[in-house]
Order: sequence, then structure tokens, then C-alpha cells
Amino acid sequence: MKILIKNTDLLTMADEDQILHNVNISIDSGRITHIGDIPNDFTPEKIIDGREKLVMPGLVNSHTHIAMSVFRNYADDLSFWPWLTEKILPLEEKLIAQDIYWGSMLSIVEMLKSGITSFADMYFLMDETAKAVSQSGIRASLTRGLAGNESEGQSKIEEAIEFYKKWHGTDNGRIAVDAGPHAPYTCSSAYINMIIEMAKKYNMRIHIHLSESKKEVENSYEKYNKSPIAHVNDLGLFELPTMAAHCVYLSNEDIDILADKRVHVLNNPASNLKLGNGFAPINKLLKNGVNVALGTDGASSNNSQNMFKEISLAGLINKGINNDSTCVKAITALKMATINGAKALGLDDSIGTIEVGKKADIILIDMKKAHLYPKHNPVSAMVYSAQGSDVDTVIIDGKVVMESREIKTIDIEEVMYNVEKHAKELIKR
Amino acid sequence: MKILIKNTDLLTMADEDQILHNVNISIDSGRITHIGDIPNDFTPEKIIDGREKLVMPGLVNSHTHIAMSVFRNYADDLSFWPWLTEKILPLEEKLIAQDIYWGSMLSIVEMLKSGITSFADMYFLMDETAKAVSQSGIRASLTRGLAGNESEGQSKIEEAIEFYKKWHGTDNGRIAVDAGPHAPYTCSSAYINMIIEMAKKYNMRIHIHLSESKKEVENSYEKYNKSPIAHVNDLGLFELPTMAAHCVYLSNEDIDILADKRVHVLNNPASNLKLGNGFAPINKLLKNGVNVALGTDGASSNNSQNMFKEISLAGLINKGINNDSTCVKAITALKMATINGAKALGLDDSIGTIEVGKKADIILIDMKKAHLYPKHNPVSAMVYSAQGSDVDTVIIDGKVVMESREIKTIDIEEVMYNVEKHAKELIKR
Repeated sequence: MKILIKNTDLLTMADEDQILHNVNISIDSGRITHIGDIPNDFTPEKIIDGREKLVMPGLVNSHTHIAMSVFRNYADDLSFWPWLTEKILPLEEKLIAQDIYWGSMLSIVEMLKSGITSFADMYFLMDETAKAVSQSGIRASLTRGLAGNESEGQSKIEEAIEFYKKWHGTDNGRIAVDAGPHAPYTCSSAYINMIIEMAKKYNMRIHIHLSESKKEVENSYEKYNKSPIAHVNDLGLFELPTMAAHCVYLSNEDIDILADKRVHVLNNPASNLKLGNGFAPINKLLKNGVNVALGTDGASSNNSQNMFKEISLAGLINKGINNDSTCVKAITALKMATINGAKALGLDDSIGTIEVGKKADIILIDMKKAHLYPKHNPVSAMVYSAQGSDVDTVIIDGKVVMESREIKTIDIEEVMYNVEKHAKELIKR
Repeated sequence: MKILIKNTDLLTMADEDQILHNVNISIDSGRITHIGDIPNDFTPEKIIDGREKLVMPGLVNSHTHIAMSVFRNYADDLSFWPWLTEKILPLEEKLIAQDIYWGSMLSIVEMLKSGITSFADMYFLMDETAKAVSQSGIRASLTRGLAGNESEGQSKIEEAIEFYKKWHGTDNGRIAVDAGPHAPYTCSSAYINMIIEMAKKYNMRIHIHLSESKKEVENSYEKYNKSPIAHVNDLGLFELPTMAAHCVYLSNEDIDILADKRVHVLNNPASNLKLGNGFAPINKLLKNGVNVALGTDGASSNNSQNMFKEISLAGLINKGINNDSTCVKAITALKMATINGAKALGLDDSIGTIEVGKKADIILIDMKKAHLYPKHNPVSAMVYSAQGSDVDTVIIDGKVVMESREIKTIDIEEVMYNVEKHAKELIKR
């Protein structure tokens, strides 16, 4: 489809915080074909009025478990272990395919409505999440989470391979499938090795949780006499391109490893705060050249799938913990949510900035909002003032998925009805 | 005016986190007259459909400088002193009445749109802010900020008294006027004493900044050999009901003084983070019985006037800094933004909860949003999932000020046009 966005302000994210004013953007066959002067022979099938809008790259939610939205606001303000063992795990054991499907759809609605065009997910019954991704038009890197040991874990690996074969590269490449060792504290070393073999064979990226809680790191030293990061590095995990979620408790040696092995750190500020884990050393990671992306984590530990909240947190919290109002500037927080996320997912050649030749994953922000006035600095406005609800239009892979806040691919009433029904049934089950 | 809200869910905030389902609420002559059974002879002039809505008390923004919205997104990511002395102060010196009026109007639009029904403000040219409050229908405690010494400061005190006489108690009591010694580092001891005398004579509350930055506290020890809080306590300030903004850097002795003197602490999490000041010890203050309210601070150090952001931050950050996911629970964060704010402003007899006899400062939240589904726990939803844009209807002093997100008292287009014009002129001036 040929789309023309007319007379818009544009934050490309390709060239620091440069803003182009009153430009046109053409999209053809899913890709950005021109910015600025559009050839006379370009005949758009759809024209989008870009006045009073800001065009920027769609946001990348680099770490989540979208089906967990069925647990949103169900178990809060609890200690980690009662929360996990008394509330979440008993419900997870009772989850059926339909819960996963409708929970995934609910999160996708929330993500599209707040400008997320790509996400990386780890959970189970992933066929249902993949179906929701396919139908909704969002872009995703999906992972069947793997936990266990070498004897019991083989069937899950087979499931992960089957899932990879079925979905990887489908929908014009919108869906990718990664390898997901859940965490070093839930996987034996032999099992991690088996997952590494699988990932090498199928050329998969790794998506893993690392050093999220203090206790996890302490236990790793007790068991392996090293940090979780040193442990999986010694197993050879980081020879594969790796997305490491959380990375809250890091030694200087850990940071050196992450930098050296070009591990992508997925920072989840709201979740780390809400579960009482604290703050990842983002400023230090960035200064050491580590690529840091942003994610929401699942809706049971956040309780939102709204990257504007995470962007704002990234911009604010790092200043607070470092007692330095100049650190993690607005543009840096916005990069974490766009191009850095694209890098983490291995997609920076095709998304994460607005440049000719890239895939058209684009959002339009409605700038005619009192809370975005006066128009001093759009980058500051996006980080410190914007809300998810300011997103007006979402284009993914060159298709208009949301326009004037109406999602074209999903019946939202049906999703809310079914989520409510399934969430209530799940608790009674 | 007689208003009936029908078939709504109600979070009264009077009885912990109790939710009443499918109730009716009647409002007459500005006050809540019935909750539940409405007498047959009640003949409403206006009926509001409360289905799929949550009724709760309007939010109280306990500390801000609303006219500063003209500086929103103008000077960010800078060190405090360059920010203040090179960016903000030079512009403040050039501010004219119209800048203050339109800036105040802009913030009031943002506040109403995100469910704020009362705020406490300190700035100058306050006549303009009072006019905006009067016209818009919002409730406010206004303060002419006073800085200086006994020789140069007398004229400002006279101005403050004149402002008090003109506005205090006007608009059916919607506008109150307080006494505002800016901070111990900007006022001489003799000047603070003069302000105390004024406040005693006119029965004013005190609104002050205390212990916001580390440097301020260090300087106080150098100059007075005591903390800012011990210093103003020794001057007798806390004999008057006092609202103390920030209180970030506190000794145990400071906390004892605040508790003993029943000082209301106004916590501004976003501003404290953004300026690199850090985190006020909210959990400790609450445990010591101090009343803690929430505020946005001005839009040049936040950059929002959206209490849902502060509520979320209060719920998240205190868990992070205390490594305790059970501290500052959702209901506590919501109290900080409602009844605790009402207490700080000295208005807890009349607002802050939904109870028969209280003034009708009420908001209706649109619960039919994907990000608020499923409906497990509305209190968690308000703190961890809600956005300012979920506020559907705002009633203040028994009058419908916003309905279906349309503000009835303000021409928003006119406000945005004038703010943009004045902000641009201000920079060139």
C-alpha cells in the first residue's frame, strides 16, 4: 500500500534529537521511500494529515510476558515469594489456551494504543500469542520460556523448535522466534547448554532473565561461586546474540562482560521498583557502551504495558539515583525505547529510526494537547510530559493498524469481554 | 444544582479500600447529600450515568507553581544552578501578568483533564492565578511566595496581605490564601519572623520549601549549625499549620520534629528525581505518623501537572528504595493524593473523601479501557495502571466542570494559542 504522511514534524531518531518541520513522508510496500520531497509520480492510496502531529519511530517493548495481563491488578503489594508461589504460580498452572489468547490480545490493544509497534515476549502456550500477533498486525520476537534440567526439559525444547519452525519469519517477517532459557536459577547448566545447541542450530537469538534480584545473585555465588552473568558467560551463552532482561545487581566485572560480549540489556524500571528489586545501573551501563533497551515486563509486576511510563521512569529515576540531573537525558531515554530496542531484537537494520529504506514502523503523536504546550522541545515533551493516550496513529510494516486512536485489526469490546470472562473463570477454576 | 450520579462503583477513600458497587450518589447545593438510597423527593436537574465508571474523590495537588507551565520542556537535563540561574531566573524576571494568566490556565486545563480538583500554589503576580482559578471552577490554596530580608521584603508582605484580603474565602470558599516564606535559604530569619507575625494575625496556613537539596541542608548546618527544619522550628514557624514541600534530606531528629509539630509533608517524587535531588524518605515519615501529601511541583521541573504520574511514582519508588514490595501500598499512594492532600490544605472536613455532608469534589474514571482490564482490584488499577486521560468527568464544589473529557469553563483552543504566543514572546523579550 502507498501511504503519504503530509506536512508533519518528524523526529527521525537517526540523527540525535534533530527535528524536521513540515515534511512529507512516503511509504510503499511496507518501507519508507522518501522523506521531504516526494516524486511527482508517487500516487498514494492513503493520505494522512500530519499537521499538529509528531512522527517518530514506533516504540519497542523489549521485554514482556503479554499473556500475563489476565493477572493485572490481581496480586499487588506482596512480598516476592508469596506473590509468586501463592498467587501467580497456582494460576499459571491453570492457564488454558484461551486465557493466553485473550490476555495477549488485551496487551496488544494496550501496546498499540500507547505506540508500541514491536515487542519481545517470553511465556508458554506461545501459539496463542503468535496467533494474536499475526491477527493484530504488531511486530514481535516470541520465545517459548524454558526452565528445568536436561532430563525433564527435552520435551520443552522440542516444543520450542516446533514453535520456531511454525512461526519464525512469518507474516512478512513480522514474527521472529528466539530461544528462551528462563534464567540461570531455573535452568540447570546442562539444560542451558542444550538450549545453546538449539539456538546455534537454528540461528536463534537468546532472551533470558539475569540478575533481577539480590537473592538470585547471592544464590548464584553460593552455588557456582560466581555471578549469574559470569556463570552463563562461562557456559558460552553470550557467543549468541543475547537479550538479558533486568540486570539490576551487577558487579563491575559483570558490566565488563556485558560490554565485551555485546549483550543487550533490557531495562524494566517499573517492574524492578514494584517488586522491590531496586534500580539497574543504567547510567553506568550506557557509559560502558552497553546497548540498553526498555521494557514493561508482564502486567502482573508493573501493571501496565505502556512504554511512555517506562521512558519517563528511565528519564527520571537515573537522575535521582545518581544525584545528577544531567544523566540519562531525554534523548537517551527515547533511544532506549526505539533504536536501542531495535538493536536488542536484531532489527536495527529495518526499524527503530525513520530513514529511507527502513520498514515503516511509525507512530504519530497528537501534539495538540494542553500538557504538551508550549512547544519548546518535542524530545523533552515525549519523555517528561507525554502520555500513552497521546498516540494518534500507528503504522506497522507499512500498514495503518491504528488511526485516530481506532485500532483497525481488533474488536476491542470483544477482547475486554473475553478477558474479563476468562480472568474470572481462571480464579474459580 | 441537584446532581444524581446513577449506578456507579464508588471508592470513598473514607473506609480504607472498600468499594461500593452499583450505588447512586446525590449532590445538592455543592454537597454530597446521599450515597446509596436516594429519597424519592430528590429531583435532580442533572443525571450522570455512572455505569462502567469509578467514582472517587478529586485529586489534591498539594505543591505546585502552575504559572511555570510557560517554561515546560524549555530547559531540561541541566545541572541545578545553570538551570535556575541561566534559564529560569532570567525568564522569570521578564514575566508579565498575561504570561502568568495563560500559564495558570494551561496548568488548570491539564489538572482538570487528569482529575485534580484542588491544588496549593506558590508564585508571584498571583492575582492572575487567582483569576484563572475563579474562572475555571477549580479549588486552590494560593500563596504569594516571599523571599528576601527584613529591609527589602516589607513591600512583598504588604502585597501578600492585600492578596489575602482580596481573595481569601472568595468563590464560595473555593479560594484560600496562605502565607509563603519561600525557603529558609532565601529568607532571613528576621523575615521569616515577620511572615510568622502576618500569618498569626490573619490566621493563615504556612506553605514553604524545606530540605529539598543536599546542598541546602549542608549550607544550613554551616550557617545556623542546624538543619533547615530545626532552624524554622526554632523560629516558631511550626506553631502555625504548615505545609512543607520536598523534605528530601531528613535526619531522624527532623522526622521527630515534623511528626511532633504535625507538619504536613508535600512529596514531589518526579521533581525530586528530575532535578537529581533523590528520594524523600516517605515510608519512614508515614511510619512515624507524619501526614504526607503528593504534589507535582512546577512544570519546569517535572514536566507535567498530572497526579496519576505522581501516584504511580509514590507506589513504585518507595518499594524500590526500601527493597520492599509491600511498602507504600496502592491504597496509601492513593490516600496521599486525596485525603492526605485535603489534610495538608486544612480541608479534610470538607473534601478528600466521598462522604455525606462533604463538599462534592468528585471525579469519575472511565473504567472501560483495555489497560484497566480485567477488573481485579480498582485501587491497584488507579495506582499502577491508570492514566490521567482515564478521567471522564470532574465535579468541583458541586458543579460539573468537565464532562466526557470536555471542560465546560475554559476555551482550551484559546488557552493553547495564547500560551504558545506568550511563551515565544517571553523568550524574545
